[in-house]
Amino acid sequence: MNRNKGVTGPKGFKAAGIAAGIKDSGAPDLALVVNEGPGQAAAGVFTTNQVKAAPVLWSQQVLKERRLRAVVLNSGGANACTGPEGFQDTHATAERVAEVLGVGAIEVAVCSTGLIGERLPMDNVLAGVDKAAQELAGTDRAGLDAATAVMTTDTRPKQVWQEHPGGWSVGGFVKGAGMLSPNMATMLSVITTDAVVDGDALDAALRRVTARTYDRLDVDGGTSTNDTVLVLASGASGVAPAPEEFESVLHAVAQDLVKQLQGDAEGVTKEVSITVNGALSEAEAVVVAKTVAEDNLVKTALFGSDPNWGRIAMAVGRAPATVDQHRLGIAINGVTLFADGHKAADRSAADLSGRDVDIVVDLNLGDGAATVLTTDLSHAYVEENSAYSS
Amino acid sequence: MNRNKGVTGPKGFKAAGIAAGIKDSGAPDLALVVNEGPGQAAAGVFTTNQVKAAPVLWSQQVLKERRLRAVVLNSGGANACTGPEGFQDTHATAERVAEVLGVGAIEVAVCSTGLIGERLPMDNVLAGVDKAAQELAGTDRAGLDAATAVMTTDTRPKQVWQEHPGGWSVGGFVKGAGMLSPNMATMLSVITTDAVVDGDALDAALRRVTARTYDRLDVDGGTSTNDTVLVLASGASGVAPAPEEFESVLHAVAQDLVKQLQGDAEGVTKEVSITVNGALSEAEAVVVAKTVAEDNLVKTALFGSDPNWGRIAMAVGRAPATVDQHRLGIAINGVTLFADGHKAADRSAADLSGRDVDIVVDLNLGDGAATVLTTDLSHAYVEENSAYSS
Repeated sequence: MNRNKGVTGPKGFKAAGIAAGIKDSGAPDLALVVNEGPGQAAAGVFTTNQVKAAPVLWSQQVLKERRLRAVVLNSGGANACTGPEGFQDTHATAERVAEVLGVGAIEVAVCSTGLIGERLPMDNVLAGVDKAAQELAGTDRAGLDAATAVMTTDTRPKQVWQEHPGGWSVGGFVKGAGMLSPNMATMLSVITTDAVVDGDALDAALRRVTARTYDRLDVDGGTSTNDTVLVLASGASGVAPAPEEFESVLHAVAQDLVKQLQGDAEGVTKEVSITVNGALSEAEAVVVAKTVAEDNLVKTALFGSDPNWGRIAMAVGRAPATVDQHRLGIAINGVTLFADGHKAADRSAADLSGRDVDIVVDLNLGDGAATVLTTDLSHAYVEENSAYSS
Repeated sequence: MNRNKGVTGPKGFKAAGIAAGIKDSGAPDLALVVNEGPGQAAAGVFTTNQVKAAPVLWSQQVLKERRLRAVVLNSGGANACTGPEGFQDTHATAERVAEVLGVGAIEVAVCSTGLIGERLPMDNVLAGVDKAAQELAGTDRAGLDAATAVMTTDTRPKQVWQEHPGGWSVGGFVKGAGMLSPNMATMLSVITTDAVVDGDALDAALRRVTARTYDRLDVDGGTSTNDTVLVLASGASGVAPAPEEFESVLHAVAQDLVKQLQGDAEGVTKEVSITVNGALSEAEAVVVAKTVAEDNLVKTALFGSDPNWGRIAMAVGRAPATVDQHRLGIAINGVTLFADGHKAADRSAADLSGRDVDIVVDLNLGDGAATVLTTDLSHAYVEENSAYSS
């Protein structure tokens, strides 16, 4: 895992990140990722929110062909709840990208993130596309610029690259700091590979991988209107890996990006892993883990470094899944505090002073298991979200 | 509505609230409410959490008879996740009340609130029962003492009484400040009446009333392990009101107690009402309203007095109910900010500087409507819940 490279790590990709003047601050706000081929296979997964931003509606449409030449992304505005006019803005952006690159608009995906409900300053967006196209490069710097231009409340760009000994690689970036419960959740991520993979195989691998990586991060339950993960394959390595080998590297890259999202979540002081074992099914394990992950009383206790397992028991019990309180067990950072319906070790035995907290809930009912990543609920989270309009 | 009286307002009831030494602080922590008849009809609704405290399991059992002579309540410990030993503690408490009052243990309900996972100091509890029994009185002061002894992080006792011109009345108290999403939440409430109502009618009325009052308060989604609402009818007025008349007064008393819970919720700076109209059903309206009520991005924006309707749209869209973003409308404090999928008035037109915030979401799909009460998510909520073990 190499975090010094990202989308331009794999062969066949160029990128750019520039300041287009969408953000009032003058910070970078427009990124372009271009697949120069020879292949153009691509796949995407999108938010499950019923209120979908214009760029999501557009990109879902163009991805039906499982081919992409480019992705244009902006921060500084979500272009969500903006009606048909907002959709026209997205379309016009794709058209401009297509024009400057000499490709079709249907080969261009669009992603946006920022405040919901406001139109984008289209003059700035379109001029920004021209500027970004001029700066496209295959360098590490260009990949980092793209990862930087999509940031909103993110405190740092988040990217990673992994090379396979077989001569191909997978790289990607991600942004997201709040409204984070990708299900698919504004979490935007672009992954590139120079492996030879066809569109259908790419789509299948991406769906399986996102279901167990992005979809198992839950900072605040806030599945956004704009969540998007795209993967583009250039085939430029000339190597067609075995599907399970490709999926394994894709999973590793996705999981690393998700860990980076967790570590940079708004106000985070604890990086919390919640594992549920012994559920009747994997789906029930996920539901129980997410109920605990979203529980404000659990999250505030964690902020206070308080091993308050009673709140965890409360959250488990209110989850829409099968639970038997007489079989329930709870361990924090390796110390079993509750077992078979009885208090076990005294809570003081669990040390929560560090940044990493590992919670294991055992339902003792079946074989279903899942791990969900979350964070604590801190003063900084409240401060940031009561002051920042997003 | 008279908040100077509570459970001892109706004829036939005595109460007491004393310090039994369950709390380290020495604050009042044990309450007793006794129905002196002539009737003993009673009904109860309890938490839907699958992790249920020992007193909930006990009280559900005894309420099958729809008769109660007394309710004993303690703060300072939830007696939840305490195994069969905890259940024996509850049983022993009921037995002691039965003994001192000369009734059967099966006629005594038990309620507890406080930290989950610790046994109660039974010597103190049992001696406290004796002391409370000696102090039983039908005075306003005794009712207020009982309402005071059940407080945990509550900042004030919460009670109300309403008299009907027909010669009967309904009174009650409630406690609860966090872990509040009664579905039945630790929210404990005892309501008394001197109307002549039989147990089945009392049960039916209580279920209908709680479903539209207690169950529509959602501070933090935290349905507790101990939530209980009990109603006891002494019949001492000799008046048997028409069922709809009785339910109407019961509803008014319950709704007033719920408003008091909202106003005293942990860290509250905004009292927020979320009305969803135009849902496909009332149940879908409730689900959408609760999803908005529990959304931390909405709640922090409200704390910041920010009319961020985009976050409301996001929360509506992720609710498990039917939503069409092109029909969706959102108004805050009477100003329509989003209508038919388009931005309406500028967000600056909505003034959120006051304590009361009224949010109306119109799905424009059907006739289902519901209102859910909630609060903002403030620094004080985080502070209180990261410092207080409950």
